[in-house]
Amino acid sequence: MSDALNKLFATIASRKGADPSQSYTAKLLAGGVEKCAKKFGEEATEAVIAAIQKDKAELAKESADVLYHLAVLWAASGLTPDDVYAVLKAREGTSGLDEKASRPKG
Amino acid sequence: MSDALNKLFATIASRKGADPSQSYTAKLLAGGVEKCAKKFGEEATEAVIAAIQKDKAELAKESADVLYHLAVLWAASGLTPDDVYAVLKAREGTSGLDEKASRPKG
Amino acid sequence: MSDALNKLFATIASRKGADPSQSYTAKLLAGGVEKCAKKFGEEATEAVIAAIQKDKAELAKESADVLYHLAVLWAASGLTPDDVYAVLKAREGTSGLDEKASRPKG
Amino acid sequence: MSDALNKLFATIASRKGADPSQSYTAKLLAGGVEKCAKKFGEEATEAVIAAIQKDKAELAKESADVLYHLAVLWAASGLTPDDVYAVLKAREGTSGLDEKASRPKG
Repeated sequence: MSDALNKLFATIASRKGADPSQSYTAKLLAGGVEKCAKKFGEEATEAVIAAIQKDKAELAKESADVLYHLAVLWAASGLTPDDVYAVLKAREGTSGLDEKASRPKG
Repeated sequence: MSDALNKLFATIASRKGADPSQSYTAKLLAGGVEKCAKKFGEEATEAVIAAIQKDKAELAKESADVLYHLAVLWAASGLTPDDVYAVLKAREGTSGLDEKASRPKG
Repeated sequence: MSDALNKLFATIASRKGADPSQSYTAKLLAGGVEKCAKKFGEEATEAVIAAIQKDKAELAKESADVLYHLAVLWAASGLTPDDVYAVLKAREGTSGLDEKASRPKG
Repeated sequence: MSDALNKLFATIASRKGADPSQSYTAKLLAGGVEKCAKKFGEEATEAVIAAIQKDKAELAKESADVLYHLAVLWAASGLTPDDVYAVLKAREGTSGLDEKASRPKG
């Protein structure tokens, strides 16, 4: 399977229950959904900052951090990448990627 | 190529220069990096909220929004998914996913 | 009382129950804590962007938006400015503003 | 002057140039706008989480953190509370607090 996100998620899932003092991933997961959500939020802000600074190398790094922490949040929440791909697939199927435009937003 | 993120990015890239009144993606891209970064930040907050609410279906939806808007931010910034995968790959190569723990954080 | 935040909060509190079609504040409050939290998160991201862009006038505007939406979030959550000032006061009282440095962070 | 935010800002401004190893505020300011913006973004996310969790005591604490880090961001950016109050005042003056509803949003 060539999906980078699937691979990332599989590695993360394999750390569940590992020694938090040895694994950053295990430490995050041991902190529960709240800790994982906080870290994901932090990384999202850092990606925004890198983008505004037009720092492409930094944006690539922060984007990797975002993907990693998003996948950790999925693991902490009992979600898999497939649950998310199913949403993307459904949008693509019905009215295309631009379906979002018609969704009511809070 | 089975990578969901690559596929998503290809669709987004194909909307570059399309009519902003017809395509949500084109409208975002026409707004530049700043607009794309704002929307990405919004979706990240919504994913955090869904996670804290333990709403798995909502988290899957918001995660799809995060991936979509992150890919839009890449397109607006002149980045490709491969630039981000290269970062993930390099981390994996050297000291594994848990390399992040040893990185100095700002 | 000269406190700008108190005044802002009092105005917001007075809109509780007003017609959401006439008052933006009433509309936010009618959306509940979730909607108010989302909007606050959005404005925080916009303040971050203005700061990184070194746009002082925009940062002043976005900061005003942050204060306004934070006060709305307090109103939606049953909090008053005094509840927050009490926290600031307590920190000042014991070990000064820098107390935060010694707090364990998640 | 009884304004809690003014007082907070004055204390922060007085730490400018202090020893970063002794003062958390001095350390933040020494990190520049980027570091201050990151920390502000983090605290905003934590306030969102506390609000969604309906944890009033935690929301009060996180709100104090938001105000403190927002004031640090002002100090780092060469802004004063008065610059922000002027924006609030101007909105109040012309069309009231609900002016925001009519502003075009990105």
